[in-house]
Amino acid sequence: MQRKAFVLGGAHTPYIGKFHPDFIWKGHPDFGKRDNPSLGEYLRIIIPKALAAAGVEARAIDKGIVANFAGELFSNQGHLGSVAVAADPALDTKPFWRVEGACASGGIALLSAVEAVKAGADLVLVVGAEVQNTKNAKEGADYLARAADYDAQRSIDPFTFPCLFARRAKAYREAYGMSEETLAWVAVKAYANANKNPNAHMRTVKLDHERAKVASDKNPVFLSNPEYKDYLKVSDCSQVSDGASALVVASEEALERLGRSRDSVVEIAACELATSSIVGPKSLVSLDNCKAAADRAYARAGVNPDAIDVAEVHDCFSITEVMLYEALGFAAQGQAQRLLLDGATQIDGRIPVNTGGGLIGFGHPVGATGVKHALEVFRQMKGQCGDYQLAKTPQWGISANIGGDDRTAVVTIYRNL
Amino acid sequence: MQRKAFVLGGAHTPYIGKFHPDFIWKGHPDFGKRDNPSLGEYLRIIIPKALAAAGVEARAIDKGIVANFAGELFSNQGHLGSVAVAADPALDTKPFWRVEGACASGGIALLSAVEAVKAGADLVLVVGAEVQNTKNAKEGADYLARAADYDAQRSIDPFTFPCLFARRAKAYREAYGMSEETLAWVAVKAYANANKNPNAHMRTVKLDHERAKVASDKNPVFLSNPEYKDYLKVSDCSQVSDGASALVVASEEALERLGRSRDSVVEIAACELATSSIVGPKSLVSLDNCKAAADRAYARAGVNPDAIDVAEVHDCFSITEVMLYEALGFAAQGQAQRLLLDGATQIDGRIPVNTGGGLIGFGHPVGATGVKHALEVFRQMKGQCGDYQLAKTPQWGISANIGGDDRTAVVTIYRNL
Repeated sequence: MQRKAFVLGGAHTPYIGKFHPDFIWKGHPDFGKRDNPSLGEYLRIIIPKALAAAGVEARAIDKGIVANFAGELFSNQGHLGSVAVAADPALDTKPFWRVEGACASGGIALLSAVEAVKAGADLVLVVGAEVQNTKNAKEGADYLARAADYDAQRSIDPFTFPCLFARRAKAYREAYGMSEETLAWVAVKAYANANKNPNAHMRTVKLDHERAKVASDKNPVFLSNPEYKDYLKVSDCSQVSDGASALVVASEEALERLGRSRDSVVEIAACELATSSIVGPKSLVSLDNCKAAADRAYARAGVNPDAIDVAEVHDCFSITEVMLYEALGFAAQGQAQRLLLDGATQIDGRIPVNTGGGLIGFGHPVGATGVKHALEVFRQMKGQCGDYQLAKTPQWGISANIGGDDRTAVVTIYRNL
Repeated sequence: MQRKAFVLGGAHTPYIGKFHPDFIWKGHPDFGKRDNPSLGEYLRIIIPKALAAAGVEARAIDKGIVANFAGELFSNQGHLGSVAVAADPALDTKPFWRVEGACASGGIALLSAVEAVKAGADLVLVVGAEVQNTKNAKEGADYLARAADYDAQRSIDPFTFPCLFARRAKAYREAYGMSEETLAWVAVKAYANANKNPNAHMRTVKLDHERAKVASDKNPVFLSNPEYKDYLKVSDCSQVSDGASALVVASEEALERLGRSRDSVVEIAACELATSSIVGPKSLVSLDNCKAAADRAYARAGVNPDAIDVAEVHDCFSITEVMLYEALGFAAQGQAQRLLLDGATQIDGRIPVNTGGGLIGFGHPVGATGVKHALEVFRQMKGQCGDYQLAKTPQWGISANIGGDDRTAVVTIYRNL
């Protein structure tokens, strides 16, 4: 008889970075006059925005959890619970802390909020934020390699994580005969969805299948590792984004106290975390750790993959999305390419995935991503997605947020009320 | 009717660093042949050791929480939930994650375990670890400054945190007329206690009041800031330590299942976290954020400060211990020096504080400290402290773990059963 947890709503900042029109770089008209928001600024921007969207006053919040991967490195700033509290004087002395599980930090924050509600809290603020564009791509890649087994894996390539997933792409494509052309549909879908999303990093950048399907000057390979370099192009990668997302998780009692109708909220039917040894993975062709979390989540929620109407999955690279279709049970092992060829995961398909553009199109401010997942499912369920709103209101949704090379995974199942 | 949480036991590694006989530096006979343990090694060492001490098998653990402040910086390694899982194959796919709240990370891990038990878990592993001696003192000071408001406060001194607390020492000493000689008793007590503790960083280093009470060549001031430099000597500082501590928190059901008698465990009667804005503090002469946590903890546990028989407090600097006596209600505001002059907080005093040497004597591997606090109270309650065992078994204990300049604080109250 555990206490139930609900999403009340929340907000995103725009996700920005290279190729986003508002991102201040040396070619931008405001360069030298204005700067991109800092990590602290993102927290101070997103918290009031999310509270307003959720209809909750700061003083009513019981606890807050901040998801961030590498603030100490990109922004010289840790201790982010305290930085978040600076967003509103009414938060002073409330319990706020930061959680970290690499790119799954946002999912861990959501899980921590669900646990807090089970433990007795009524209103919990979940905030995810990351700033990465303070450093160049090579330095950033070194920082992000701290999500891998740094001493053992850093040397695989200057771009460690792209290479770890190129390794998976090679293994998977060889095992199951998936062509580069087929894989390219993941990125094409991501950009097409992002082009309809005003908060997306790639909202103004077009990608057609012609460009996505083969390496070219405009879509180059960039790894150095000779064994894996041909298995990953720029278009296969998620974005190096700055941004923040936040939402409020509430107990049933809080809904009553706030006079919130059931049809304005979404129930978190299950939220499951699995963590596997940094010395891994055992299999390159399946996301076994994520599958463990997914299996538990389905069991806890009492549904199976057929019930899912909308999904947000962690497409850190295009191959990851393909493998997540299988880890989440949308396709049998080795069969995921069928979904791409059928268009089943497109916005008008049977099981729309990453309707706002995913990590490849919407962007990937690392700590924010898992929070964004939950909020995107909520927004689709409540008809808040504007130009990328699904035609049919979803009844069940799922999100899968992974950290490192599938070493941490949070799978969450949502029920529309 | 919340589920109760209990400490089952745990373990420390030795805390090591400069001046510890086992610490490998260029003057050590093993230099070049052997190296100090890495962060990953500390996690792999402490987890089996703590599980054995607690009498729990790895496969029985439901969840694990890792406390660490700055692994990304000192060790190029984040994603520490996954690094911890590497300690035992039986932990694979269990939910493990990392929490961070600067020097209060360990307290937050303890709190997260208590919340997990309230939410339904039965056995939760709490691990704290930090490695800081991979870098020199100046670089380390820059890393640790990420626990402050880096952009605003970094420039106060090359040693940012020592200076922030020298600022408090100056304000407090001027406000309440406390002499340097009186303050020195904090460090003298810390070293004397550490000299009886085989795990203490300063176990072989002596400090008498003669040396502690005034700056000298052997106990110099080292800050650059002209306003504050005379308010902090080397002997006033906690140690730059490497080390790990871990323990198991259990539900009442788990105690029954494991057949554990009440007198082998300690109840966590309250565990309260307060977080205040990084833009702070409002008062230099009181630890108001910690006091907020302490007030809530006493109310939750239903006891007052007079009941406390043993305390572990966050003496990151000697002035912090003095101010914590007041935040925890052992003395009225401005009156803490009475306790030092009376010897009340010495190991044979009325309210022994930091019996194993505290952060100044035992050492301060940042993420481990809050976990160590809890385990030290447990060990005193269960008679496991050897040469520094209290004569009278404590019935009630308290710990206060703070992060940054009192921006995060976890206060925990323990009841011996």
